[in-house]
Parts: sequence; C-alpha cells; structure tokens
Amino acid sequence: MARVIDVGAYAEGVLAGNRTTLARAVTLVESTRADHRDLAQELLVKLLPHAGGAHRVGITGVPGVGKSTFIETLGTRLTGAGHRVAVLAVDPSSSRHGGSILGDKTRMGRLAVDDHAFVRPSPTAGTLGGVARATRESIVLMEAAGYDVVLVETVGVGQSETTVANMVDCFLFLTLARTGDQLQGIKKGVLELADVVAVNKADGEYALAARRAARELAGALRLMRRPGESWTTPVLTCSGLSGEGLDEVWETVLKHRQTLEATGELAELRRRQQVDWTWATVHDALLAELREHPSVRAIVPALERDVRAGNLTATLAASRILDAFHGRQGES
Amino acid sequence: MARVIDVGAYAEGVLAGNRTTLARAVTLVESTRADHRDLAQELLVKLLPHAGGAHRVGITGVPGVGKSTFIETLGTRLTGAGHRVAVLAVDPSSSRHGGSILGDKTRMGRLAVDDHAFVRPSPTAGTLGGVARATRESIVLMEAAGYDVVLVETVGVGQSETTVANMVDCFLFLTLARTGDQLQGIKKGVLELADVVAVNKADGEYALAARRAARELAGALRLMRRPGESWTTPVLTCSGLSGEGLDEVWETVLKHRQTLEATGELAELRRRQQVDWTWATVHDALLAELREHPSVRAIVPALERDVRAGNLTATLAASRILDAFHGRQGES
Repeated sequence: MARVIDVGAYAEGVLAGNRTTLARAVTLVESTRADHRDLAQELLVKLLPHAGGAHRVGITGVPGVGKSTFIETLGTRLTGAGHRVAVLAVDPSSSRHGGSILGDKTRMGRLAVDDHAFVRPSPTAGTLGGVARATRESIVLMEAAGYDVVLVETVGVGQSETTVANMVDCFLFLTLARTGDQLQGIKKGVLELADVVAVNKADGEYALAARRAARELAGALRLMRRPGESWTTPVLTCSGLSGEGLDEVWETVLKHRQTLEATGELAELRRRQQVDWTWATVHDALLAELREHPSVRAIVPALERDVRAGNLTATLAASRILDAFHGRQGES
Repeated sequence: MARVIDVGAYAEGVLAGNRTTLARAVTLVESTRADHRDLAQELLVKLLPHAGGAHRVGITGVPGVGKSTFIETLGTRLTGAGHRVAVLAVDPSSSRHGGSILGDKTRMGRLAVDDHAFVRPSPTAGTLGGVARATRESIVLMEAAGYDVVLVETVGVGQSETTVANMVDCFLFLTLARTGDQLQGIKKGVLELADVVAVNKADGEYALAARRAARELAGALRLMRRPGESWTTPVLTCSGLSGEGLDEVWETVLKHRQTLEATGELAELRRRQQVDWTWATVHDALLAELREHPSVRAIVPALERDVRAGNLTATLAASRILDAFHGRQGES
C-alpha cells in the first residue's frame, strides 16, 4: 500500500525548512497522478500565503556556455553572504535522454552539499507544459521553505526560454564570445527576453574577445531598445570558473530588481505572470484534448495531406477539425 | 432581397481577370456572414488549382517609415517592367479607427489607377485572426486573377507582423536611421522575422546616417545568425521618394526567392504555412469559444482576482475554467 500523504504535515515540514519534507513536496508537485495533483494543489494553497519572498532569477544559455559552473560559483558566494539559495531547472528534453541534465547535483558538487542551498534536477514529466508547471509550483515550495534566492536554469530547447522568462523576476542570458571567424549564432528571440546579458568564460586568452563580443551585443541591444522602458539590458563579461565579474553580474541583477520595485513593475509583473500562467494552462489542456480526440485524430492525416497539396483551404480543414472535436456531422 | 451570389460566375470572372468581379470576390471572403463564409470557401476551392503563382512579399515598418511611398514607387516600377501587382494590407487597428489606413488607395494615387495593379485596403473585420484570414484568402484570389506579385503591407500592431510573415515568401522590414541621439527602438522580435531589411529615406542629408544605421543593423543581425542557414538577412538603404536603391532591394528579394527555390525550401515553406494556418484557425476558434462561454465568463473575473492576489494557484484556477467550459461540476 502506498504511503498516505498528510498535506498538513507536508506544509508544516516545508515551512520549518525540513529538507526531506521539501524534497517529498517537490516530488508531489512533479507527479502527474490525479490524486497527487489534487493533494499538491491543497498543499500549494496552504503555502501560498508564505510564498513570494524570493528573488527569482532565470538563467539560460546553450550547452557548453558554462551554466553549471556559473551557478555553482554564484550560489556558493550567495550562501556565503547569508542567502539561502534554491536551484531549479526546466529541461523538457531530459525525459527523452533518460535522466535530467540540468540541475544535476553531480555537476554542482559544492552547492549540493551546502546546508544553505537546495539543488533540484529538472522534473522529467515530459512535455514543456508539465515540466514548467512543476517548476513554477516548486518555486512556491522553495519560498515557503525560506529560500530567498531561487535560480531557475534552462537550456534553449524550443519554447523553454520564454517559459522560464515568464516565471522569474529577472532573466539572465549567458553567452560566449565568438571563436575566430565562427559566428556565435545567438538563438533568435532570446535577446529580447534577456534582462541581463553576460559573456561567460571571459578569462585568460578569451578575456579580450569576450569584451569585444559584449560591446557588439550592447550595440545590437541598443538598436532594439524601445523609448520609455525603465530598464536597458546591460551586457557584462564574467568567468564562472575564476569568479571574475560575478559580483558585478549579481549587482546588476539586484539593480534590475530595485528598478522594477521602484516603479511598481515587479508586483505587477508577478501578478500578470500568475494570470498568464492560468490561461496558458487552460490553453495547453484544451489543445491537448483537441489533438487527442479520437475523431480529430482520425481525420487529421488526410486533411493535412490535402492542405499541403493545395486541394483544401486551411479554413475548410479547420472547420472540419472543429466539427470532429464537437461531434458535429460535417456537411460535405 | 439580397443579390444572389453565383460562385461559378465569380470563379470565371476572377480567372478572366475581371476587376469588378475580383473586387466582389474579395468582399465575399472578407464577409463574416455564415452563408458568405460557405460561398467563399466554395469559391476558394475552385480557384486553389490556379493559385500559388505569385511572388508574395510582406512589407512592414512603423508608421512614418514611408511604406506607402515605397510601395507606390516599387509597384509602379514593377508594372512598368510587365508585372501585374496586387497590394493587400493587414491592419487590425483599422476597424477601431473607423476606416482602413493601410492600402488606402488615396495614398497610392498612381498605383490605384494603374491597369496592371490592384490595390485593396485592409479588411476591417476587427480581430487580427479575421483580418489575416481575409488577406490570406485574398492572396488566392489575386493569384487566380493572374497577379504575379502580391505585396502585403502591415504596420507593427501586436502580432500582425508575425501573421504577415507567415503568409508570404519574403518579409521585408523597412526602418529609418536614427535621428540625432534618439535611438531607433526597433520593435523586439521583428528583426528575426525579416528576410530583407532596408533603411528607407536614405536621401539627401540623411543618406550618410542611413548607411551608418544599415551597417549597425547588419552587425546586429550577424550576431543572430545561426549556422547552416541558407540565407543571411541583408541590410540595404533606399529611398521610396527618389527611387534610389529600390532596384537593389527588389533584386535582393528576387535573390532570396531564388535561394529558397534552389534548396526546395520555398515549396516546403508554403506547404507548412498552409498547415500552420489550419491549426492557428482551429486554435483561435476554440479559444474564442472558451472565452465566450457563459459559464466561463461568469467565473473568470473572480478567479483572476484570486490568482492576482495570490490566494489561488494558477493550476486550480485553470481546472475550474476547464470544468466550467465542459459543464462539469467543480469539486470545491
């Protein structure tokens, strides 16, 4: 028989900062079982009044940019300065690879054994929507447990960057300087999400190239600046390995928060994120229902083939799909 | 009694290039009346085998960038070179302003009276989805009527640029040089949609600033280039007023098409656009149903208030909305 989950005891344990209970609570919100989902919501409603206290920072960058080393060094400095740091991850690809990559404790050896840090690998719930839900809800748990800095790591797979940008206060984009003539190939769209950009691995022989890359990126971002914005995305250089520039990156993250707090934008941002998240959840669920509906599945391959071949208008194909979903008899 | 619409006669007239019938056919696809929608789909299915022959080019830029003058000068050159040019527009704001701005024939005096051109203002159907549908379907009509260049103009309102980029072969972004120290403020995300960028009004005293802006933009775009892409977005300068640089812009648009044709990407792009359009139509319709559902409308204000205040999780709010939509009784 499965262990009975006592939501009241979970809530007390999380609020007391009990690490074992916190880990179990995260497992509960990660679960996709219907009864677990209900218990998780019960727990989260209890903890919501105690949440919201952390500085939520998203960190992205392509594989190889040095995210783990950056987070390890930054996190250790933050716990050394008295902070309690939680590290979460959104890696929707991890389930395909048979295990989580991001947030892997073995990559963050020091932080994983740090009493003031809590490192949790990415949930392997499969879809980005599922992984994102679990991570968003884990933020509530971390905050209720007293962590005052929550770092959410992600890799640039599909929409994962947009998803993480929409659950944090500040979105930090790590990149590298070009190597030789090879262009960097920054993922389209990521610059517009970034609140702070840092060119990592700016150490030794690469320091000069990193500073040049930072200047070019700053120029590109200036072109994209809109009049009236209270914050202009700065571009810094740093080294997760040597620690050089890390204090400046963190100070910039703090300055970003102060700017948003001063204008009242932070509170409004968080409220808007909650409402956006609600509707994103509704939309995802409804569209999943649509795509999994047997009558829809039965007609989609032939419809898509006709649309691709130019024999059927998209509008007609769309109304046939909607008719199938609603169980209506098509006219033609 | 309303005039009876003879779809067969409409199809014949459009295929014969009859301007009056073509204008009526566009009015038909713009209509939101259910019986008109059915007739329009019947007409489009008849015309689809004759469509697809045009070079479809989207043109965007903020108000004041000189889109009308650019299109007037370019379009006149193209008809002078033997092309038949259709000008359509997507301006979802036009219904709010009590009339269409984009594609307004009075702004394109020469082209509007050119026998080899067909200028049609933006439909005023209200929502972007509705305007986009009418414009996409009008492209089919224009192609069936023998227009071999279709220019689709849009202004940067909401998602209109993405929408237009997804219905054309080539997306041209017009911009201006900075004036003095004032930064340009290019709309976030538009650079990543652009296949060709042109700094307009590069004439007289502004020519130098335009060339400088073009160099900066080219640098920014290089940073965003991904390895393996067959096309790198070039940045040119031109003047819609003097016509300087317009031939080079058009030659670049042609070169873009040749590149996509050589790799087979153009055919695949168009097939994918049709399938994407199908699903976008399905999603828009389903989400509109959801938002307009009486039981959903009844609970949304209170739910959003609770979510914003942090009293309710987004996940719980979402399941209550879905329950209301499906007519299920909520448990709590």
